[in-house]
Order: sequence, then C-alpha cells, then structure tokens
Amino acid sequence: MRAARVLAPLLALLASACAQPPAPDAAIGPAVDLVHYELVDLSHPYDSDTVYWPTAPSEFELTELAYGETEGGYFYAANLLSTPEHGGTHLDAPIHFAAGRWTADQVPLERLVGPAVVIDVGERAAADADYRVSRADVETWEERHGAVPAGSIVLLRTGWGGRWPDRASYLGDDTPGDASNLHFPSYGEAAARHLVETRKVAVLGVDTASIDHGPSTDFIVHQIANGANVPGLENVANLERLPETGAWVLALPMKIAGGSGGPVRIAALVPR
Amino acid sequence: MRAARVLAPLLALLASACAQPPAPDAAIGPAVDLVHYELVDLSHPYDSDTVYWPTAPSEFELTELAYGETEGGYFYAANLLSTPEHGGTHLDAPIHFAAGRWTADQVPLERLVGPAVVIDVGERAAADADYRVSRADVETWEERHGAVPAGSIVLLRTGWGGRWPDRASYLGDDTPGDASNLHFPSYGEAAARHLVETRKVAVLGVDTASIDHGPSTDFIVHQIANGANVPGLENVANLERLPETGAWVLALPMKIAGGSGGPVRIAALVPR
Repeated sequence: MRAARVLAPLLALLASACAQPPAPDAAIGPAVDLVHYELVDLSHPYDSDTVYWPTAPSEFELTELAYGETEGGYFYAANLLSTPEHGGTHLDAPIHFAAGRWTADQVPLERLVGPAVVIDVGERAAADADYRVSRADVETWEERHGAVPAGSIVLLRTGWGGRWPDRASYLGDDTPGDASNLHFPSYGEAAARHLVETRKVAVLGVDTASIDHGPSTDFIVHQIANGANVPGLENVANLERLPETGAWVLALPMKIAGGSGGPVRIAALVPR
Repeated sequence: MRAARVLAPLLALLASACAQPPAPDAAIGPAVDLVHYELVDLSHPYDSDTVYWPTAPSEFELTELAYGETEGGYFYAANLLSTPEHGGTHLDAPIHFAAGRWTADQVPLERLVGPAVVIDVGERAAADADYRVSRADVETWEERHGAVPAGSIVLLRTGWGGRWPDRASYLGDDTPGDASNLHFPSYGEAAARHLVETRKVAVLGVDTASIDHGPSTDFIVHQIANGANVPGLENVANLERLPETGAWVLALPMKIAGGSGGPVRIAALVPR
C-alpha cells in the first residue's frame, strides 16, 4: 500500500492548510466587505416634502443662517434645523410606546447593525391597502429561507415606498390634523409576536409610515415591539433594491439623549 | 507509479475544493464582521450640555410633545428637536466652506464608510493648546504604517475628547457670542494638503470642535478639504478606544436635503 503511505501525510497537510480558521487576533481583512457588497441608501431625504403624521405640530424646517462669501474672503453656508422626532425615515426608540424602555441614545449599536430579513407582501398590500402581515406570511418566508435569525433587522416591503412623498396615496388621506382615516399596510399582531417574542429579532422596519397599519387605534405592534426593547424603523426607502435575505443593515440614529426616536440614516450592504 | 496515478486526481480535487474563490454572487459570509470586531460609538449625545460654536444662534433643544399614559390605555412619548447643523458630533458637508460642492444629502455613502487612520498628537497638543498637526506628524504615522490609504477616514486624536463637555477647557473660552479667543488643536495646512490632495482621503475628522485649530480666522483646512469635496467630522468621541490602524468607520449623517452638514452618528468597528 505505497499509495496510502504517501497519501495520508500529504492529505493531512493539505487539509490542515486549507481548513485552518483565522486566529482571533490575527490580521483578518476588512470589517466591512465593500468588494462583494454595495452600499444602498435606505433613507429618504429631509425636505419640505418629507411625510409626517397628520397630527404632527410641525414638519421639517431648515432655516438659513449663512450662505455666500464672507468678509474673510471665503464661502460659508450654515443652517438651523427643526423636526418632530417621528417623521421622515426615523427610529422609534423603545420608549416611544413603552415606559422605562431604551431612549434613542440608549439603543445599543449592536442592535442596529445586523442581517436584513426582507418580507415582501407587495401583492397582498396592492389588493388591500389596510393589509396586515400575518404569521403565515412570515412562515412562508421561513419555508424558503429558514427561521428568521435572532438579532436580524426585519424590513417589511409593501411597495409603499414608491408612493413617497405623495401624502394622499402614501398615508391614504392627506387631511392635516386628522389621523382617523389613514390607510396603509404594515405588521399584524401575530406576525409581530412571532418575530419579537419567538424569533428575538432586533428591529422591525417598514416602508410605510408606521409599524402598525393605517387604521390602528391601539398601536399593538408598537406596544409589542417597544415593550420588548425592540425599536422600529419607519418610512424606510429603497427596499425594492434588497434581496429577501443576504443583505446587511446599518441603522445609525441621531444620538438624542432621552429621545423617543428621531432621524436615522440607514445603509444596506447588498451582495453585488 | 501507482501512487502518482492515485495522488494526482485526488490532490487536484482537494486543491480545487479548498483554493476556489467564492463566486461573486454566492453566499460569502457576513458583510459586517461582528465576530472579530466590536462596535464603538464615536458620537457624543445631543443634550443641554452639547457644545456649539460660541456664535451659534441657538443650541440643542428637545421639546416634549407627549409623555405618559394616553386615553387609549397605552404609554406614548414624543418630542420635537431643534439644532444648528454645526454643533455636537456633526458632519461638515463640503458645501459648508465650498460653493457648489456636495450638500449633506449628496455625500455618497461610499465616502462615509472606510478604514480608520488615527493620528495621535496628544503629547504635542497637551504642550500647546493651539497645536496644528504638521506634515511631519503625518509622515511619522506613515513611517510606522505605510502611506495613508486613499479613501480612508482620518481621525485626529488630540486628547480633547476627554474635556467634553466642559466648554472652557474644550474650546479654550466659554464667552457666549465670542469666537475670537478660542484655543484647541487641529489640522495644519500642509498636513491637510498632504492628506487631501496627495493621499486622496475621504474624510478629515477630529476630537475637537473644528478641523481648523481654535485661533484660525481663514479656516484654511476647511477650504482645502471642502473644496476637494472632502467632508469633515467634528467633535468626534471616544477616539482613545481606536488603534492607529485596523479599525473601520461608519459615519451616517442625517440626510438633510441641501444641508451644509448636521448630526451624524459615527460607529467604529474595532478589532477585538
């Protein structure tokens, strides 16, 4: 058995060279893979068209403080901004609907960086503007991709992002000061319980104005998520550019001490 | 040569299985390495202590809109915020000091995610509060680590982060409305030209209030950087937790349409 005598050590050597994991403290390459992934912006801009809840006391305001050549001979521009926390692409910190839970500055960064789980209910939402994602919808996703991973950032894709910033079609009603006749899709209670309580996801996001659907009056999904210290991401943009699985999300909110939420810039790393 | 006849195809099979690079569209593992890297928050919070330029017309204001139990039987909290763009841990968009350059919403995300280059001048700054980083300081870094990579995010560590939010020691003077007697360290002109024009870095950041040192009246580093579409990051926090090289920075600013800058949440991925 000459072959075996030669083979055994050679194969062992080759196998060990190729299977060896990197040492934890070694130089291990980039922490952010920009070679195999592209960055996709999931935030709408803040401007005079930005959509706010109809009962918001004000909207996004940018006040010019300076713009032009100075006495010093250089150009200089600066502004002052004002916004309610909950408009545009924003974070719902857990305290938004749950006393004693994390404020905007307290949400750990680890909860805001994670694998994206994109659940598409575009067809059902197109047929029913008040559609609520069911537990069965989530299970259909799980049949294709496996259980929703703990710590993932769930992004519900209803197709409503394409209606931004037309308020009448995005919110279902554009009567200022009146939130009693809104129509848009979002999560349902059983789906939210499954994702938050069983799957232990980190974040619930959606491409509509709320993680509760338009007609909600008890905001049960907010209560479930925020009560479990799970933040929301609302008015998320460009979800049509994400695969159902395989992307990563980085959601970095303005660090408002004691804030109930606020502006958040969301980037996705999407496989090229 | 029975051994060779057996060996050749076996070795070829094993080598191909182990050396094969991942296909570009295959599942290729995490885009963000949270196993070998930890997330470090490089943003100070926005609160009533947040440091603004002494001539800012206002500071950070959080106005409570709601806090407590509602008639619906659930808890609800919401606020309204107001801030000049250039206070706290914030972005200087290139248009801040350069007409026609990128506004806050226009800076590509690719410029805001990159390898961190941390240049420490703590000793020199401790001896001279008006210290400006020289080209020689940058070259000393380059002797140890190689040329500053194109596209990197340079973070100047002066030690001033430890003085936050004490205005008198952080700015050198806490007289409201008077910016004529400020003292803190930052970049010098030759270092900025080397980094921006020769090394083609993506961002200049610093743990003081400005990428120009306190006594500056011509803001030449702003002019150089912003003129080349290079944004600034000012009042960066926790730089003592970063190595000189090997970390990654994710700086995601509020997406203010036409903004000259604004609040930015900065996270670093630091090797464990």
